[in-house]
Amino acid sequence: MPQGLRPALARRSTDVPPTGRTPADTTPIDTAPRRDAPAPGVPAIDAPATAASTTIAPLPASRKVYVQGSRQDLRVPFREVTLTPEPTGKGPTGDGPTVEPPLRLYDTTGPYTDPAFRPDPRRGLPELRRSWIRERADVEEYRGRPYRPEDDGLRPGDPHMAHTRWPGPERPPLRARPGRAVTQMHYARRGLVTPEMEFVALREGVDPELVRREVAAGRAIIPCNVNHPELEPMIIGRAFHVKVNANIGNSVISSSIEGELEKLLWAIRWGTDTVMDLSTGRAIHSTREWILRNAPVPVGTVPIYQALDRVGGRPEALTWEAVRETLIEQAELGVDYWTIHAGILLRYIPLAASRVTGIVSRGGSILAAWCLAHHQENFLYAHFDEICEIARVYDVALSLGDALRPGSIADANDAAQFAELRTLGELTERAWRHDVQVMIEGPGHVPMHLIQQNVDLEREICHDAPFYTLGPLTTDVAPGYDHITSAIGAAMIGWYGAAMLCYVTPKEHLGLPDKDDVREGVIAYKIAAHAADVAKGHPRARQWDDALSRARYAFRWTDQFNLALDPERARAYHDETLPSDAAKVAHFCSMCGPKFCSMQISHELHEFSRRRGLTLEEAVEHGLQEKALEFRARAE
Amino acid sequence: MPQGLRPALARRSTDVPPTGRTPADTTPIDTAPRRDAPAPGVPAIDAPATAASTTIAPLPASRKVYVQGSRQDLRVPFREVTLTPEPTGKGPTGDGPTVEPPLRLYDTTGPYTDPAFRPDPRRGLPELRRSWIRERADVEEYRGRPYRPEDDGLRPGDPHMAHTRWPGPERPPLRARPGRAVTQMHYARRGLVTPEMEFVALREGVDPELVRREVAAGRAIIPCNVNHPELEPMIIGRAFHVKVNANIGNSVISSSIEGELEKLLWAIRWGTDTVMDLSTGRAIHSTREWILRNAPVPVGTVPIYQALDRVGGRPEALTWEAVRETLIEQAELGVDYWTIHAGILLRYIPLAASRVTGIVSRGGSILAAWCLAHHQENFLYAHFDEICEIARVYDVALSLGDALRPGSIADANDAAQFAELRTLGELTERAWRHDVQVMIEGPGHVPMHLIQQNVDLEREICHDAPFYTLGPLTTDVAPGYDHITSAIGAAMIGWYGAAMLCYVTPKEHLGLPDKDDVREGVIAYKIAAHAADVAKGHPRARQWDDALSRARYAFRWTDQFNLALDPERARAYHDETLPSDAAKVAHFCSMCGPKFCSMQISHELHEFSRRRGLTLEEAVEHGLQEKALEFRARAE
Repeated sequence: MPQGLRPALARRSTDVPPTGRTPADTTPIDTAPRRDAPAPGVPAIDAPATAASTTIAPLPASRKVYVQGSRQDLRVPFREVTLTPEPTGKGPTGDGPTVEPPLRLYDTTGPYTDPAFRPDPRRGLPELRRSWIRERADVEEYRGRPYRPEDDGLRPGDPHMAHTRWPGPERPPLRARPGRAVTQMHYARRGLVTPEMEFVALREGVDPELVRREVAAGRAIIPCNVNHPELEPMIIGRAFHVKVNANIGNSVISSSIEGELEKLLWAIRWGTDTVMDLSTGRAIHSTREWILRNAPVPVGTVPIYQALDRVGGRPEALTWEAVRETLIEQAELGVDYWTIHAGILLRYIPLAASRVTGIVSRGGSILAAWCLAHHQENFLYAHFDEICEIARVYDVALSLGDALRPGSIADANDAAQFAELRTLGELTERAWRHDVQVMIEGPGHVPMHLIQQNVDLEREICHDAPFYTLGPLTTDVAPGYDHITSAIGAAMIGWYGAAMLCYVTPKEHLGLPDKDDVREGVIAYKIAAHAADVAKGHPRARQWDDALSRARYAFRWTDQFNLALDPERARAYHDETLPSDAAKVAHFCSMCGPKFCSMQISHELHEFSRRRGLTLEEAVEHGLQEKALEFRARAE
Repeated sequence: MPQGLRPALARRSTDVPPTGRTPADTTPIDTAPRRDAPAPGVPAIDAPATAASTTIAPLPASRKVYVQGSRQDLRVPFREVTLTPEPTGKGPTGDGPTVEPPLRLYDTTGPYTDPAFRPDPRRGLPELRRSWIRERADVEEYRGRPYRPEDDGLRPGDPHMAHTRWPGPERPPLRARPGRAVTQMHYARRGLVTPEMEFVALREGVDPELVRREVAAGRAIIPCNVNHPELEPMIIGRAFHVKVNANIGNSVISSSIEGELEKLLWAIRWGTDTVMDLSTGRAIHSTREWILRNAPVPVGTVPIYQALDRVGGRPEALTWEAVRETLIEQAELGVDYWTIHAGILLRYIPLAASRVTGIVSRGGSILAAWCLAHHQENFLYAHFDEICEIARVYDVALSLGDALRPGSIADANDAAQFAELRTLGELTERAWRHDVQVMIEGPGHVPMHLIQQNVDLEREICHDAPFYTLGPLTTDVAPGYDHITSAIGAAMIGWYGAAMLCYVTPKEHLGLPDKDDVREGVIAYKIAAHAADVAKGHPRARQWDDALSRARYAFRWTDQFNLALDPERARAYHDETLPSDAAKVAHFCSMCGPKFCSMQISHELHEFSRRRGLTLEEAVEHGLQEKALEFRARAE
C-alpha cells in the first residue's frame, strides 16, 4: 500500500533525534542544531520561521532499487513504483488478473530515499565517487585556500561564524596533478569510459560508448567536480533525457541556510537534475558548503555574484583577482558548473540600449557596468583561458552565460542576443581546447514562432554544445503564472534540442520563491522535459505515459496516483470529492459520475464481444443483430 | 489607485440586499434567493456550502469603455487599464515623466463590470441583440415546447420545481419564419454585414468585411442563437484572436445551480470567451436557463447528455426522437452551439478496440454503446440533415464532436481518430449546404511532435472550418497538473491554427473542478491563447506584452500588477515578501534585492550616457576614458 500520503508540505514544529529518521511515513531529515553547536541559520532579514525538518520519505509505493554496474561500487539508483494487478475481467488484455510489472523511473533523490541510509546533514552524503577519482591517479590533495570570515560577509571574530559554518569533517581539496586535466571530456577524448560515464549510461538506458562519444564531441557534459564526490553523475546533452535545473539560494531580503537546504531536498524530491545556488545574501560560502556536502546532484553557481559581494557590491570595483579567488574558493568546495558571462563584449552593450527591457541578466548588467566604467573589454573574456585552466584541474563545467538574453517578447532574437551568441561560439572552441566541458545558456522571453531559431543558431554557432535555457517565457503578460508561460516555451525548446531547462517559478519577476514555489516550478519543468522526451522519442519516455494510461483505463486509481509526477497532489485532488476507499476501485470519478463514464462504457463494449468469443471487429463486421439484442438485454 | 485588492476568492457569508451592488471594492452579485421564493439550489449530493455571492467588481485600475459602432445600439466593450506616468528621468525615453496611454484589452465580462449596470440574475441580462434580430424580419415568435418537470429529472408536482426554475419573465421563443435561415453564415453568404459581424470586427480590430468573408467561407463562426439575445457576439476563426472555452456544469456527484452560476461569472472574469454547460446531474433544464439568461458569452452544450438523462441513463434506450426533443428544448432556451457526435460510425468502433484507453469521449462512448446494441449506424449521422434543419432556424452552431479522440499519448493520431475526422469533413459540407455554422472538435492527448499533423489534416479534410481543441495534453504523467500539460499543447495548436481552446483544469481525470480550478484553468488557457496570438502576429497581441514589459522595466510595480492577466495574484505574490507601499516604487524586488537588480543597473548605464549627452553607442565607440572615470566617481 502507498505510503507517505500525509501532505509533504506539513511542517513539524518539533525536532527529531539527531540519529536521523523516525519510523513515521513522512520521515523528516534533521537539520536542527546539535546540542553542542549553535543554530546553523544566520539571522536574516525577514527570515521565514520554518521548522527544522524536511520530508525525504520515499514517494508512495516507491522503493529504491539499484542497477549494478561493472564494478562493485557502481550501482545506479532508480525509483521503482509497484503496481497492483488489474481486477479480474477488466482491462483490454483478457480475463483474469493481469500483473503489471513495476515501473522503474529515473531517480534524482540520491541516498535520501534509501531506507538503509541514515542522513545527517552535519556529516554530509557518502563520497560515492571517491575511489573513482583517486584511482585515476591524476589528482593531488593540497592545502586549500583557508576560510576567511569575509567569505561569509562577516568580520573576523564575528560570533555568527560558528553558527553558519558547516560542521562536518575537514577535507583537503583535490586538483589535477601538474600538467594534467581531470575533465570527463579529457577522458572521453582519450577513449576512456569512466565510471561516471558508465553510471549515466545505465541511468539513461544507453550504451556507455554513446555517452563517451557525445562527451568527447562536446555534445554532452557530465558536470562533476572532483571535490564533489557525493554527486550521482548525470549527463546534459541532446541525445539524453532533457534535464531540469532549479535555482535556489538566498537574497539580501530573505532566507537562511536551513531554508536553502530544505529547498535543495525539496527540489530533488520533485525531480530536479541539478540545482544552482544563486545566493547573494549573507553567508554565501557556508550556505554553499552545506548545500554541496548534502547534494546528490550537480551544483552550479554564478561566481560573479560572490565576487561582487567580495568587493562591496560595486560592479566597477570588480577585478579579475577577486573573481579568480572566488573561482578557486568555489572549485575547492566542489561547485560543478559555473555560469560565466564572458560573451558580453564592450561593443555589444549599445545594442541593448534601444531594447524595451535593456539587460535583464544580473551577471550581464554587472559586467556591462564594469565595462562602461572602465571602458575596457569584459575581463572575463580577457581572462577566459585562465578560467579554463582552473576549470580543467577541478573539472568544473562552464555554462556560458547569455548576459544579453531578451527580458521581454519585444527584445527576442535581436542583434544584441545573437552578437553575444557568436562570441559564445568562439569561447566554446577555446574551452574545448582546454578539454573543458561547456554548455550554452539561452533565453529568456521568446514568442513561440521565434524559439526554433534559437536552437538552430545555437547548434550551428556553438558546434552542438548542449543548450541550457531559461524557459523561454512565451508571453510577458502573466506574472504570477510564469512557470506556465515558460513551461510552454521550455517544452518546445526541449523538443527542438535544448538539453537542460532552467525552471521558472510562479514568483518570477515578483519575489523570491518559497518551498511551494519550488515544487510548482520543478513540476512544471518536469512536465516540459518529459513532454520533450516523448516528442524526441527517448526510448524510456513513453513507457511512463503508457503505464499511467493503462492504470487510468483499468480504474486502478491508486496506481494512477502513484505513477503521477506528483502522487500526493493527484490523490488529494481525487479525494476532495470522493475520499472513501471504495472510490479507489470505483469505475468512475466525480468528473462524470458513474452513468457518464466513457471508460466504463468502453469496457462494457469489450466485455460484450469478449463474452461472445468475438473481437469487436467481428461483432461489427458480421452484423450480429442477435448479439446486439443480448447486449441490450444484459444491460437492462 | 487600484481597486479590488481584496482576494476575489474570499467568500462573503452574509447576503447582500437584493437591489444589487454594494459600494465595497469587491462587489458581490446577489444570487441569493428572494424572500418570496425558495432557494435556487437543488439539494445535491455533497453540494459545497458556498455563500451566495460572486465577485464581479472591475479588475484593479480598470474601467469599462465602449467603442461606438455604426448604430446607436452597437457599442463594443473594452477593459481600459489606466497607467501611471513614469517617474522623472527613468525609462528609456528621456528625462521627465512619460505618460503611458491607457491600454484597452478585450473584455469578456459583459455588463457586469459596467458600474451603470445593476445585475439581477433573477431578471437576467439586457437583450443587447433584441432589435438586431427583430429588424431582420425573418423570425417569428411561437408557443414553445412547454416545460416539463422531467426536463429537470423531477416528477410532476415535485416541490423542488419551484426551487429550481428560473424566475425571470417568460419569453416566447423565436425561430426562423418558414423557409428562412437565420444563421450568420446565411447572411454572410448573401453579402450582408450584420450588427453581430460589425460588433466582432470592432472587438477584434479588423475590417467588418473580413469578418463577413471568413464567416461566409466557413472559416469562422459567430455562435449566437436568436434565443440568446443577451450575448455579446464573438468570433471563432483562425484569422482572429484565439478563443478559450471553459466547461462548467454539474455532475451527479456534486454542484448546484448557484455554484454553476458562480462559476460562469468567475470564468468570464478571468477571460473565458465561451462556456460549455456540461451538466449531467439534476435540474439540467433549469440550471441551463439560469446560465443562459445571465451569460454574456455563447453557451455550448452536448445535447446527448440531457437526452440520455431523458431515457433513464441507458445508452441503448436512446432514440432520435429523444435527442430531437432535447435539441428543440435547448434551442428554445438559447444554446449557441452543440457538440454533435455524428462522426463516429459503426465501422469505426473496432478501430478503437486495441487502444490503450479506448473511447474517452463521453458522448462517443454513449453512441458507440448505442451502435453496438442496435447494430445500426449512429443515429446522429443518420439524422444529421434534420439536426442541421433545427440549427438553421435558431442559428445554433454545430461543433462536430471528436468521439474517437485519443485519451492517451499512445492513441494519438491513430486510425480511429482520423477515420472519424474524414466523416467530420463530410458532415461539414452537409451542414454548410444548410447555411449552418460549423466548427470541428479536436484532441485530446497528443505528443508535441504529432500536434501539427492534427491541424494540417483538419484544415485539409474539413475545408478550413474552425478547429476547436481540448488541450491537447502533451504527456499523460501529470494528473493534478493537466492545465499545464495541456496548456503546452494548446499554445502550440493555437499557433498552428486552432481557433478555440477548450480549457483543462488541474482536476482533469481526478474530479469535478471547483471555483479555484476554474480560475487556474482559464488563466492557463488565456496564456496559451495569448501566446498563440503573439506567435501568429495578431495585430493587437503584442501591445499588451510591450506595455507590461515597459512597466516592468520602469519599476512601475502597480502598473505591472494591473496589466497582468491576473492582477490580484501578481500583487499578492509580490507583497508576500515586500508588502509596504514603498516597495511599489522600489527599483528592485525580493528576487535579487537592490544590489543585484539588473534592470536598475541597466538604467544607470542609460543615465550615465544621457547625462553626458551621448548615446550608449557613442560612449562606447569613442572610447571615452574620461566619461568612464566620471561614471565610476559618481557611483562611489
